[in-house]
Amino acid sequence: MNDTLSTENLSENVQTEAAAPLPRIGITGGDTNGIGYEIVLKAFAEPALLEICTPILYGSPRTAAYHSKGLNIDTKFHIIDNAADAREGELNLLTCFEEEVKVEFGKPSPEAGRAALLSLERACSDYREGLFDALVTGPIHKSSIQCDTFRFAGHTEYLQDRLGDGREALMILFNHHLRVALATTHLPVSRISEAITPERLEERLRTFFASLTHDFLVSAPRIAVLGLNPHNGDDGMMGHEEKEVIRPVIEKLVAEGLQCFGPYSADGFFGGAHYQQFDGVLAMYHDQGLAPFKALAGGSGVNFTAGLPVVRTSPDHGTAYDIAGRGVASEASLRQAIYAAIDLSRNRRRDSEARKNPLEKLYHDRREDGERSRHAHPRRAE
Amino acid sequence: MNDTLSTENLSENVQTEAAAPLPRIGITGGDTNGIGYEIVLKAFAEPALLEICTPILYGSPRTAAYHSKGLNIDTKFHIIDNAADAREGELNLLTCFEEEVKVEFGKPSPEAGRAALLSLERACSDYREGLFDALVTGPIHKSSIQCDTFRFAGHTEYLQDRLGDGREALMILFNHHLRVALATTHLPVSRISEAITPERLEERLRTFFASLTHDFLVSAPRIAVLGLNPHNGDDGMMGHEEKEVIRPVIEKLVAEGLQCFGPYSADGFFGGAHYQQFDGVLAMYHDQGLAPFKALAGGSGVNFTAGLPVVRTSPDHGTAYDIAGRGVASEASLRQAIYAAIDLSRNRRRDSEARKNPLEKLYHDRREDGERSRHAHPRRAE
Repeated sequence: MNDTLSTENLSENVQTEAAAPLPRIGITGGDTNGIGYEIVLKAFAEPALLEICTPILYGSPRTAAYHSKGLNIDTKFHIIDNAADAREGELNLLTCFEEEVKVEFGKPSPEAGRAALLSLERACSDYREGLFDALVTGPIHKSSIQCDTFRFAGHTEYLQDRLGDGREALMILFNHHLRVALATTHLPVSRISEAITPERLEERLRTFFASLTHDFLVSAPRIAVLGLNPHNGDDGMMGHEEKEVIRPVIEKLVAEGLQCFGPYSADGFFGGAHYQQFDGVLAMYHDQGLAPFKALAGGSGVNFTAGLPVVRTSPDHGTAYDIAGRGVASEASLRQAIYAAIDLSRNRRRDSEARKNPLEKLYHDRREDGERSRHAHPRRAE
Repeated sequence: MNDTLSTENLSENVQTEAAAPLPRIGITGGDTNGIGYEIVLKAFAEPALLEICTPILYGSPRTAAYHSKGLNIDTKFHIIDNAADAREGELNLLTCFEEEVKVEFGKPSPEAGRAALLSLERACSDYREGLFDALVTGPIHKSSIQCDTFRFAGHTEYLQDRLGDGREALMILFNHHLRVALATTHLPVSRISEAITPERLEERLRTFFASLTHDFLVSAPRIAVLGLNPHNGDDGMMGHEEKEVIRPVIEKLVAEGLQCFGPYSADGFFGGAHYQQFDGVLAMYHDQGLAPFKALAGGSGVNFTAGLPVVRTSPDHGTAYDIAGRGVASEASLRQAIYAAIDLSRNRRRDSEARKNPLEKLYHDRREDGERSRHAHPRRAE
């Protein structure tokens, strides 16, 4: 189960189109006291990654040099002040701040938080100007970054505010075997139940369906919905949200022809590997979805912010202060995040191009997936 | 990670003591419309299991015969009316009810619930009389079994009431790699936060330490405590229970010399396989602990009710109504539950015998576990 995505399979489309310009990927360095710079430097130490994308690292040459020297990684940057100057085949480094930032590995500091925010803000304004195709964010420290211009629980909420155009972001963690989306994200446990409303669930599910269809190019996706309470509420003995909120929403979407199943008891669902029968799983809250996902995915998971105009991915870990500066951080998840950003932005572009001029539909496609068909609800005629 | 426990390693003690009488294991059939009888019949279809324990199945000969015939499993029962008549080398079946129970696979019915309860009640009174050494319970349907004499969320709560002698049960799920205990069990998510009190946490941790020491024979166990909220509360940004409740309890126990660590963010903890560095993990609630545990354990997990005078285990699944009567249920988890019941009751007896007459301690033992020692807090002199 500890599989890793690889250039070969995830980015196969990329390989066959060498003639087209490479996708431009904006990458933020994140908190300068964490492992953000380390994993970027390690990922691009392999030249193969430069053959499938043009990276633009948002950060500071001085800070990058400090990390590079300390980790003994010989990195050649192409320093730029404008993303339009980024060159293929090079690790472009866009100067987001000039001042020296004192690096104190493993310590939360306002300086490190400010450096992370300056990189993120510049990346957002460059994305608005169309200067790159997809964004990969390095980990931030959630307390250090807080200030007047950043009052958010994390990247997902910030990007929704800055680049969402009024749309709501959906957090999806995925690897090759499993896609888990969250109905609620960064809430204390005491506030989860009140946040599980029919409106929110319906909106989350519609966004998930849309993302599976347009970003992951799954036709007629099947989504499993987890229950909120232990044992799915045990027929109302342990909570009523399943009966009163979750089931009615599932029934409503099913009546529209969307393939939506559940609710399922989270422990049995993961224990029985039932996720193998679905294209996506909607968990009700953070730990319910992410603890089993990460237990299964090891380091292979990617965090994808769906539902927004921008394609944004990130590694599925944080600043890892406990190992920062020691040179032992694994770049595997960042690498997967970069592959995923390339693939998802390409998928989305292809999907919207294909839909511009649709052929008239002559017959209904059938998926060739015998094992799954027993779960199918009848679909409405289109 | 999908390992299974086996007779060879889990029950190695048992093998070397053929001369002593075999441990007597009471087994309840559970809900008669589920897979309870099926997995018992399958487990004892292998004669090897009869060589390490004397099973007493609490149920009904008619119901057992119905399942046996329907599943085409040729089972020879030794029918008894008194557990004292149980014979070694046979699958003893103690008649708990005479009436015919209509079996309707996969359907909740009051009849099936009543059959489960009659078996459980008889097993409890027999245990009180010392007629067997450990109890293994077949799965019940939580709604069907409810009646005037059963108003509990599950076996754990019922057994605490009937056989607890005032002590509080602790639910532990385990396999060879991981032991997860729950600070709260069968609560709706909306009521978890209020249940996480310093008193409860301290009591849960002390029970967990005692069980690791006396039931699992781990000397100086190390316990990891998970945080309640996502990202461990992110320094109070997403909940205050970590700072206000969990940390102070950990600090109190550490000051006493108990090796207690955390709190840890649940997703990162499981994603980084940090549980490998601990003898036990205390999760704050059901799905936080059991979803990742079952995701990792597959079918190899055992549910153990610690903290009570009785040793009780069960498979880590439910009635599985969706596959009941189809002959496809796996007996693997029940088999592990039986092995575990044998080992845990034997461990506990040995431990209490060893403590009756202790030798004076001449020096402090050092564990040979170099990898773990970096986690050690200084221990108080004993």
